[in-house]
Amino acid sequence: MKIERKPSTALLPTPVVLLSVAGHGKEKPNIITLAWVGTVCSTPPMLSVAIRPTRHSHGLVNAAREFVVNIPRADQVAAVDLAGVWSGVEHDKFAELGFTARPASQVAAPLIEECPLNIECVVRHQLDLGAHDLYLAEIVAVHYDEELIDSRGRLKTAALHAMAYVDGEYWSLGERLGSYGQAAKALRTGNK
Amino acid sequence: MKIERKPSTALLPTPVVLLSVAGHGKEKPNIITLAWVGTVCSTPPMLSVAIRPTRHSHGLVNAAREFVVNIPRADQVAAVDLAGVWSGVEHDKFAELGFTARPASQVAAPLIEECPLNIECVVRHQLDLGAHDLYLAEIVAVHYDEELIDSRGRLKTAALHAMAYVDGEYWSLGERLGSYGQAAKALRTGNK
Repeated sequence: MKIERKPSTALLPTPVVLLSVAGHGKEKPNIITLAWVGTVCSTPPMLSVAIRPTRHSHGLVNAAREFVVNIPRADQVAAVDLAGVWSGVEHDKFAELGFTARPASQVAAPLIEECPLNIECVVRHQLDLGAHDLYLAEIVAVHYDEELIDSRGRLKTAALHAMAYVDGEYWSLGERLGSYGQAAKALRTGNK
Repeated sequence: MKIERKPSTALLPTPVVLLSVAGHGKEKPNIITLAWVGTVCSTPPMLSVAIRPTRHSHGLVNAAREFVVNIPRADQVAAVDLAGVWSGVEHDKFAELGFTARPASQVAAPLIEECPLNIECVVRHQLDLGAHDLYLAEIVAVHYDEELIDSRGRLKTAALHAMAYVDGEYWSLGERLGSYGQAAKALRTGNK
C-alpha cells in the first residue's frame, strides 16, 4: 500500500557539498554546506546549486559569479554540519573549522584543501524559484587528491569515502552494486 | 597533492531515479533512468531533471509537461540499469522490466508501483543548456510505501535501501552518520 503525502523535497539521496566563495569588500571568503545541488548538463559540464537569499553566501555568490563545489569525506561530517548551521556573518568558517584555502586555477574562490574533490564553477544562469535562487554554473576545472587516481588515470571511487544526504540525515556510501551498462551487457551475453 | 583535470560532471554522489512519463499518440508510457536530477527549491518544492534531446522520453516529457520521479531500491539495480541503456522506441519497459503502472494522483504519468517512493511533478521551466535540456518541475504529490512511515509519521530512512550514482557506478547507502544540526548542538552542549 502507498501513503500519499503533501508535496515536499522528497528526492533522495542528494549530494552534500561545501561551497566556497571569494570574499567581497570587507567580507572574508566563506563556506556554506548545500544539499540542493545536482548535475544539469554534460556538454558543457554544468551543475546547479540552490541558495536561500537569506544566506550570507547568497550575496557573496551574486558578487563573485564564481564558486568552488568541494566534496567532503564521510569523516568530515561534523565540519559539514557546522558549515551548514553557522552563518558567515558570525563565523570565519575556514579558520574555525580548520580548513585551508588553496588558490583555484580558473576562479577567484578558494578550494578547500582538505576536501578530496574540488569543482571550480562559473555562474551562467540565475533563476528566482521562490524560497531558493537557483544558479546554473559551468564547471571550468576539477581537482582530485592524487591518491584517488589509479595508474590508468581512473577515479578510485571507494577511496573517496563520500557522503550523501537523505531526508535531513548524513549517510556514508555502502557497497558498489554495479556499473552503468553492466546489467544490459549480462543480459546480452546470457541471451547468446 | 592535487591533480587538476579537465572540466567534467564530477559532482557525486547523485541520485539515480526512474522517471515515468505518459504515452503520447501511439507511444506507450515510458521509463527512463536518470542521474542528472536534483532538488532546486523548497517552497514551492521543486526538482530538476536533465534529459538529452536524443532520448525517446525527451519527446514524451515535452508533450506531457508532467512526469513521476520514482526512487528505486538497491535490489532493483539491474532494472534501473536496463531502463537507462534501453530505448523506449524498442522496448516496452513497464512490461519487460516487470514494473506495474499505477495511476498517479495529480498527473497523467503513471507511478511505478514497485518503487518505494514516487514524486509527482509538473514542468514549470525548460532550458536548453547544450547536450541536455533541463526541466525545472514543481512537486505536486509524494507517495511512500506504507512500511516506510513510522508510527509518528516519519520516514524510516534505513528501510528505503536507497541507491546512489557515483562516477558511472551504482552504490548502496552505508551507515547513518548523523542528522542536520547534530554537530552544532553537540558543540553548544559541550561548551556549557
